[in-house]
Amino acid sequence: MRLGVCYYPEHWPAERWPLDAKLMREAGLSLVRLGEFAWAQMEPAEGQFDWGWLDQAIEILAAEGLQIVLGTPTAAPPAWLSKAYPDILPVDAQGRVRRFGSRRHYCVNSPTYRRHTERIVTAIAERYVRHTAVIGWQIDNEFGCHDTARCYCHNCASAFRRWLQARYNTLDALNEAWGTAFWSQLYSDWEEIDPPILTVAQPNPIHVLDYYRFSSDSYVAYQQLQIDILKSQITNLQHPTSNTQNPFITTNFLGNFADLDYHDLAGALDFVSWDSYPTGYAEVVARDLYEAKVVVKSQPQLAYDVGDPYVTGFCHDLTRGLKQAPFWVMEQQCGHINWSVFNRGVNPGAVRLWTWHALASGADAVVFFRWRAALLGYEQLHSGLLRHDGSPGVGYADLLNMQAERKLMEQVSAHPVKPQIALLLDYHDLWATQLQPHHRDFSYYRHLFVFYRALQQLGLGTDIVPPTADLGHYKMVIAPTAFLGSDKLAATLTDFAAGGGVVLLGVRSGFKTPTNRVTDQPLPGVFRHLVGATVTEWQSLPPGVSFDLASEIPNLGGLAETWVEALGGPAEPLARYASGPFTSHAALTENGIGDGRALYLGWYPTVEQAAAIIQYLTARAGIPRPADDIPPGVVVAQRGPHSIVLNFTNDTITTTIQGQSVTVAPRDAQVVLA
Amino acid sequence: MRLGVCYYPEHWPAERWPLDAKLMREAGLSLVRLGEFAWAQMEPAEGQFDWGWLDQAIEILAAEGLQIVLGTPTAAPPAWLSKAYPDILPVDAQGRVRRFGSRRHYCVNSPTYRRHTERIVTAIAERYVRHTAVIGWQIDNEFGCHDTARCYCHNCASAFRRWLQARYNTLDALNEAWGTAFWSQLYSDWEEIDPPILTVAQPNPIHVLDYYRFSSDSYVAYQQLQIDILKSQITNLQHPTSNTQNPFITTNFLGNFADLDYHDLAGALDFVSWDSYPTGYAEVVARDLYEAKVVVKSQPQLAYDVGDPYVTGFCHDLTRGLKQAPFWVMEQQCGHINWSVFNRGVNPGAVRLWTWHALASGADAVVFFRWRAALLGYEQLHSGLLRHDGSPGVGYADLLNMQAERKLMEQVSAHPVKPQIALLLDYHDLWATQLQPHHRDFSYYRHLFVFYRALQQLGLGTDIVPPTADLGHYKMVIAPTAFLGSDKLAATLTDFAAGGGVVLLGVRSGFKTPTNRVTDQPLPGVFRHLVGATVTEWQSLPPGVSFDLASEIPNLGGLAETWVEALGGPAEPLARYASGPFTSHAALTENGIGDGRALYLGWYPTVEQAAAIIQYLTARAGIPRPADDIPPGVVVAQRGPHSIVLNFTNDTITTTIQGQSVTVAPRDAQVVLA
Amino acid sequence: MRLGVCYYPEHWPAERWPLDAKLMREAGLSLVRLGEFAWAQMEPAEGQFDWGWLDQAIEILAAEGLQIVLGTPTAAPPAWLSKAYPDILPVDAQGRVRRFGSRRHYCVNSPTYRRHTERIVTAIAERYVRHTAVIGWQIDNEFGCHDTARCYCHNCASAFRRWLQARYNTLDALNEAWGTAFWSQLYSDWEEIDPPILTVAQPNPIHVLDYYRFSSDSYVAYQQLQIDILKSQITNLQHPTSNTQNPFITTNFLGNFADLDYHDLAGALDFVSWDSYPTGYAEVVARDLYEAKVVVKSQPQLAYDVGDPYVTGFCHDLTRGLKQAPFWVMEQQCGHINWSVFNRGVNPGAVRLWTWHALASGADAVVFFRWRAALLGYEQLHSGLLRHDGSPGVGYADLLNMQAERKLMEQVSAHPVKPQIALLLDYHDLWATQLQPHHRDFSYYRHLFVFYRALQQLGLGTDIVPPTADLGHYKMVIAPTAFLGSDKLAATLTDFAAGGGVVLLGVRSGFKTPTNRVTDQPLPGVFRHLVGATVTEWQSLPPGVSFDLASEIPNLGGLAETWVEALGGPAEPLARYASGPFTSHAALTENGIGDGRALYLGWYPTVEQAAAIIQYLTARAGIPRPADDIPPGVVVAQRGPHSIVLNFTNDTITTTIQGQSVTVAPRDAQVVLA
Repeated sequence: MRLGVCYYPEHWPAERWPLDAKLMREAGLSLVRLGEFAWAQMEPAEGQFDWGWLDQAIEILAAEGLQIVLGTPTAAPPAWLSKAYPDILPVDAQGRVRRFGSRRHYCVNSPTYRRHTERIVTAIAERYVRHTAVIGWQIDNEFGCHDTARCYCHNCASAFRRWLQARYNTLDALNEAWGTAFWSQLYSDWEEIDPPILTVAQPNPIHVLDYYRFSSDSYVAYQQLQIDILKSQITNLQHPTSNTQNPFITTNFLGNFADLDYHDLAGALDFVSWDSYPTGYAEVVARDLYEAKVVVKSQPQLAYDVGDPYVTGFCHDLTRGLKQAPFWVMEQQCGHINWSVFNRGVNPGAVRLWTWHALASGADAVVFFRWRAALLGYEQLHSGLLRHDGSPGVGYADLLNMQAERKLMEQVSAHPVKPQIALLLDYHDLWATQLQPHHRDFSYYRHLFVFYRALQQLGLGTDIVPPTADLGHYKMVIAPTAFLGSDKLAATLTDFAAGGGVVLLGVRSGFKTPTNRVTDQPLPGVFRHLVGATVTEWQSLPPGVSFDLASEIPNLGGLAETWVEALGGPAEPLARYASGPFTSHAALTENGIGDGRALYLGWYPTVEQAAAIIQYLTARAGIPRPADDIPPGVVVAQRGPHSIVLNFTNDTITTTIQGQSVTVAPRDAQVVLA
Repeated sequence: MRLGVCYYPEHWPAERWPLDAKLMREAGLSLVRLGEFAWAQMEPAEGQFDWGWLDQAIEILAAEGLQIVLGTPTAAPPAWLSKAYPDILPVDAQGRVRRFGSRRHYCVNSPTYRRHTERIVTAIAERYVRHTAVIGWQIDNEFGCHDTARCYCHNCASAFRRWLQARYNTLDALNEAWGTAFWSQLYSDWEEIDPPILTVAQPNPIHVLDYYRFSSDSYVAYQQLQIDILKSQITNLQHPTSNTQNPFITTNFLGNFADLDYHDLAGALDFVSWDSYPTGYAEVVARDLYEAKVVVKSQPQLAYDVGDPYVTGFCHDLTRGLKQAPFWVMEQQCGHINWSVFNRGVNPGAVRLWTWHALASGADAVVFFRWRAALLGYEQLHSGLLRHDGSPGVGYADLLNMQAERKLMEQVSAHPVKPQIALLLDYHDLWATQLQPHHRDFSYYRHLFVFYRALQQLGLGTDIVPPTADLGHYKMVIAPTAFLGSDKLAATLTDFAAGGGVVLLGVRSGFKTPTNRVTDQPLPGVFRHLVGATVTEWQSLPPGVSFDLASEIPNLGGLAETWVEALGGPAEPLARYASGPFTSHAALTENGIGDGRALYLGWYPTVEQAAAIIQYLTARAGIPRPADDIPPGVVVAQRGPHSIVLNFTNDTITTTIQGQSVTVAPRDAQVVLA
Repeated sequence: MRLGVCYYPEHWPAERWPLDAKLMREAGLSLVRLGEFAWAQMEPAEGQFDWGWLDQAIEILAAEGLQIVLGTPTAAPPAWLSKAYPDILPVDAQGRVRRFGSRRHYCVNSPTYRRHTERIVTAIAERYVRHTAVIGWQIDNEFGCHDTARCYCHNCASAFRRWLQARYNTLDALNEAWGTAFWSQLYSDWEEIDPPILTVAQPNPIHVLDYYRFSSDSYVAYQQLQIDILKSQITNLQHPTSNTQNPFITTNFLGNFADLDYHDLAGALDFVSWDSYPTGYAEVVARDLYEAKVVVKSQPQLAYDVGDPYVTGFCHDLTRGLKQAPFWVMEQQCGHINWSVFNRGVNPGAVRLWTWHALASGADAVVFFRWRAALLGYEQLHSGLLRHDGSPGVGYADLLNMQAERKLMEQVSAHPVKPQIALLLDYHDLWATQLQPHHRDFSYYRHLFVFYRALQQLGLGTDIVPPTADLGHYKMVIAPTAFLGSDKLAATLTDFAAGGGVVLLGVRSGFKTPTNRVTDQPLPGVFRHLVGATVTEWQSLPPGVSFDLASEIPNLGGLAETWVEALGGPAEPLARYASGPFTSHAALTENGIGDGRALYLGWYPTVEQAAAIIQYLTARAGIPRPADDIPPGVVVAQRGPHSIVLNFTNDTITTTIQGQSVTVAPRDAQVVLA
């Protein structure tokens, strides 16, 4: 478990650098991320490079024993580049060219930009790839941020057509797949196909889903362009350095970001990392995960300055699940931020709590953002470990306090995070439901998050994994909405169940084919043999309309809201509707498959309902619950045999870990060693 | 009373068509609407037609005895057309070209588009106008939908100038009419006049009203282009077919749509039709009819899946009033929809209730939308009579249940709907108040709807008619806001009153001239002699401010809110203000005119106040009320001597029809024969 | 104290003008504003002038003894100009060209528009500057209204670059000042710099602040262009006329408008004026001054038709403070308006109350808007002193009632308004906090308005003045947020305190340098020696989080919300935090400086807290409070020795003026002579 910091020497006079480096080392930091927004400093004019300042900065840091993660600077092309080559600028969904003046003002499908990317990445790689202090590389920065995942420029239009030709081969195949028979949309020439913007009414959702897929693939290809350059330099290393291993390649993700297929992006990286801003996510991102009516209620029990632990934990677990492997936090909030709604203050202890949360979730390194609050630029009001005037800030004090715990951290981080339950996440299902939510409040992520919160409430760890993941070491798999049901996934889940696993499928699963057409089979389409049940009716319910539920599963009852499906056999009903038009129809079914079983849950559950079902299933499946009576706002995580209890509330709490009562102070983290 | 269905053979393999046709017939359907979105299939490339598939589909349907309403496919020009002739694309109010990828991506003022329209309409007419199964034609589809009534392209700019030259002859006349003396807007060249968009501050409302008029006229002309082609073919029919009458021409309207002058559009059609989606209208359109604060309250008593009966009924009555003649429902919701907010589920009985509501309102035919839920396109999540997998849906079951009632339906529909009360609707008044509501919550439609709901509550049928309608067979005429008061309307209403009729005029009537200038006469301008009263003061009232009312009319009292006018004689006061700055001034006056009388209502009433006034007036005028004690959520309609009671609530209700107590089950329709 | 009216002879037949002029005189009016929207009438085609109608109108008005304020008509260029020279049109922040059809459709940086401005201003000046009836000039109209203060056209881009070159001389200096090291934004060519729009993420706030400054400077220069022309004509006057003084030059401001630096604009004018619309400001503008949660609560005690007296008074006092001199109300609402949300009615007495409020606040003249309600144009539904039909409206009646008070008005207006307290207003601080509010609800104006309301509640008059004002005659200066702390202001305030004054500085003061970089010194930066305290920590607090306060100052306590700063010595603490992370840290400090003292207030106060502090300070500083027990909704103002009590409530109130009890009827104004 290593700690580091993001540093921008280009913002400060060189005279200051040695002091900064010394202070970093003294604070227990061993990693520094550098350079990801310094293209203009590296290449002040086209083809003219200036490495002196960066050489110097690296030497000074290395002299203090700090290791460097170097960023390729492509997230912020310089002014001279934007002015000379306006063709690199992206176009937004309103058809407007987005301009220079902030960052991410480029289109990954611009041949011009790809050419300039090759030059700068090659140059920086050639210069630093063999530097002993440079242990790894971050490619670009936060792909897709600021609504840049999808561009609508003419380069994208051309690239989209090529992508479609590669995917469908013929226009006949595309017309069939897209269902262009609808609304007279048959294409007779590839050039007729445009990005789906500024249409008069709603565009064809199959067209749009393919544009989302194309856009994600475009970023994957752009990332690969950089990886290939870096890899070729790494491969060319003639004289192995003191590095026992080659420099790694990663990039920084954004937790529950939804616009790119993170599984695809993660595939080509050595490991993944993400940028964790708990208070910002609690103020802004939580809206995408909690039901609108829940957001307000969920906060009061929490300390105001620590963020929402379920949101933060969800992002940690999702990031770890991308490769089912340890990850880094490449940017860790260490004081107040500046890009949210209230940018609330942060008190002593919060940074330590977040660091332990990352560690408990499987992080191998935590890199704080940023070293010192900037005097200039958009992030002026963002804090750093040091304040604007250079004095230590609230995060720096926490860092010093953590020094005594470093051994304990090592002890815990020696073990992997290995949960027995997997939650399936598929970005294509997410996009397809986003395009057709049908009910205003139906969201793929919110639905997934209901199950996540239920698991957290029960103290059950989970990996959030792609449908292609090896399910071998799980005992239970939950797929809240496997919307675009594929034969492959049906087979995977059937095999998993047959091998003794428990599969829980949620509403709207199998409604569509992978192409995004509706299945013409009885629902849940490809999954109906797996679950041994069919959806005989379904309804979207407006707010205020709900049906009673009846079940013999302990604590399972209450109301079904938002989305309901009536189920038919032959699977055994575990719950039934007790009022409304579906009265006496099954609402939850269980089907035995080999040594395991598959359940279909026919309504959009509450956290309490989901917890009741999961508790019932884990008890029968012999999945242990290491913790009991976890109060709201408290997270219990497992890393190997050890438990970590994280108290995000203002109160001293008591919980039961492995049968033993544990008391934790407000805003404190405590390790229960096995 | 005939039932039919919208069918899209182009979405399904031809092998399926015979089965579909057979199932249609068996379900009691006799009409099929076809072809309105199949231009790309009819003409796959410019000038190359493919009629084979349509020939075959028509033959298969006709073989089952089904009759065809054929759509001209101009609502969805093909991709090849949009790409080759971008000049056809419309421009939105932000100045952006709207693109191919959904439907309605054309401008009616594009000479290019008119040329292509001529070709495809001529071709389809030549091919099918003499087909014995084709009994009628639908032109285009839902003119103006998706905010397409007004386009701001260069073709429109030119056409607008020509339209203005025809209307005003000289620039002097235009400058005078438009009042361009204001804010230095005098025009010295026709080319200086543009569509009113992207102005820095608010544009001249006279300019904008003329643009609305021009835009509506443009659609009327475009519709006429198609009618002329169809009519010329119909006229050329050499060998009269088995049709006892020539094929009809209609198009499908949108109920309370406000952007086009439906009276003008209706004029040239054989009859009008509309597309009825009760749950969608209740979720979305109701906001345009109910006061903001009322919307929430109005729903709970209703069953969640049947829509708002007053909204649906208003649209039925408005559509019937367009030509004061029977109409069709060209698209009738028959399950859940996909374009609204919650797209709530629909239970058994709802489709039957809607069908009876249409029948009771004067519909001659109800055509369900659609036959089978589509596997493709934007409407994938819209239901049909059959489900995606081909199994019967909730609407199909209702259809089967209605078979036993078909005779009763015939018995009822043999009689016309002939109410004795007319509500005046003038789109120009609507537009002018929309441009200058003055009070945020003042809306022409909302104001009209207050009176409509009052009439429904009293069980009194009404025609919603244009000011040019023959008022001869009415006993009472209500004009909630005759804003642009014309001498002609003043004369019409005076004659009507003189002949024994009752005229009720509401606030803001006569405020303006037909040009949209303010009158320089005492208010209510041209109507002041008719009502024998003047508005001595008026005020817009913010929320929370209200004045007491006092009247000897039974049940008339309470508060005046939103808009108040103090009235002066000589007309007799029937109500007065009892608090506030207008205290003791008249608030409602009555003026004797020949055998009848004219009243002026000086405040924006509540439904209860409007009902009290109408009850008082109808009692005196001898207008019978066939029903009494109608509970909220229950509609009582008359068709000839018969009453139809429609219960949209969840409760069994009892009401009194022609003096006789009638009990109706929840969500049931019941006919009380004379 | 003179009364006048805005008149548009170009809207009415010339036959009417003599009657209007006679009625004006009879109503006690002596001033008429003319011509500011009549360019098209003055110059019907390029270079062809028509002065006949204006000559005639002026003669008719002058014949009744009325004096003329003539407007330069540049706020509304004619259609012919916009069509022939589209280069004059402004571009909005979405990159769209804004079009002809309303007003203000021009860019001050268009060389073309400046050329046409020169021609028309020269022409009108040559024609009328020596007319004895023309006593003064209004330049253009409401600069910046309708979001026109900032334009993003190519002319502006060029002018911005020139402005930057003049400001920074070298790109190195600009790069350093702007901090373009951040996010790779270094500029290597002036042409690379664009207006800050359509950036992908948030632009550099220093870049944006400079664009705001440039835009304001552009208006100042455009105003100066007109002043120079007028002045050159005035200087050329060969034969002094009966005017005892030269004609004045002013323009009409917009109260608390925030987009232009009114101090700069005011500098070149003879005096300033503003347009006062109390009901419109209460409905719309109040949102910018009151905290969101306060707006609703603040209204009920007030009469619904009189506006919000604190908002109106704030604008009066701000306008007077621009030059610390008497001002005019160039447009005074005299009935309902048409551009707000509800455009509520206005009752007898309101216009008189507003007139007295203006007088009490230091106005030398009140010019009513407008003479007669227009039959045409966007303002059709705006009232005038006469109604549309020419009959007298509610304002005219008030005017007649005021005739008996004219002597009293003269008696009061003979004295200046000379408060002993100054509130500092700096538009650059306002812009910089607007660009980085950090907390959603933090607004410079709202913060300032808290102190203003506290002063009003205590009956203490205040000037709202620029930091450059002569502070010599004040005893106390409050600077709520001197954000961009300058050495000059620090010195000014230190001198002021040293001379015996009291300085009260609020949160976030001194956080930045004048360039808009964060200071690298301990906070409050340049002010830390003045206040003898440092901000050791600060936090933005989300809603619902608050800390207790403890103080020995009477009535000072309660909670600190929104923004808190912990303070360190050596200054004496006057209040401390009593809960939360800053517990026991100082929250308010006082530092002795020479004969006076400087306080730093470390939280965003409520009105009650601000009032407690001000009351404590004024008592110690010997600043007298002429009034006591002022009920909410009542304003007590001083002009010389006289007090004016204005009752904006619906109730008869009693208050204590100079120790004597005064009773005032609802909606009445009463003068207490010294």
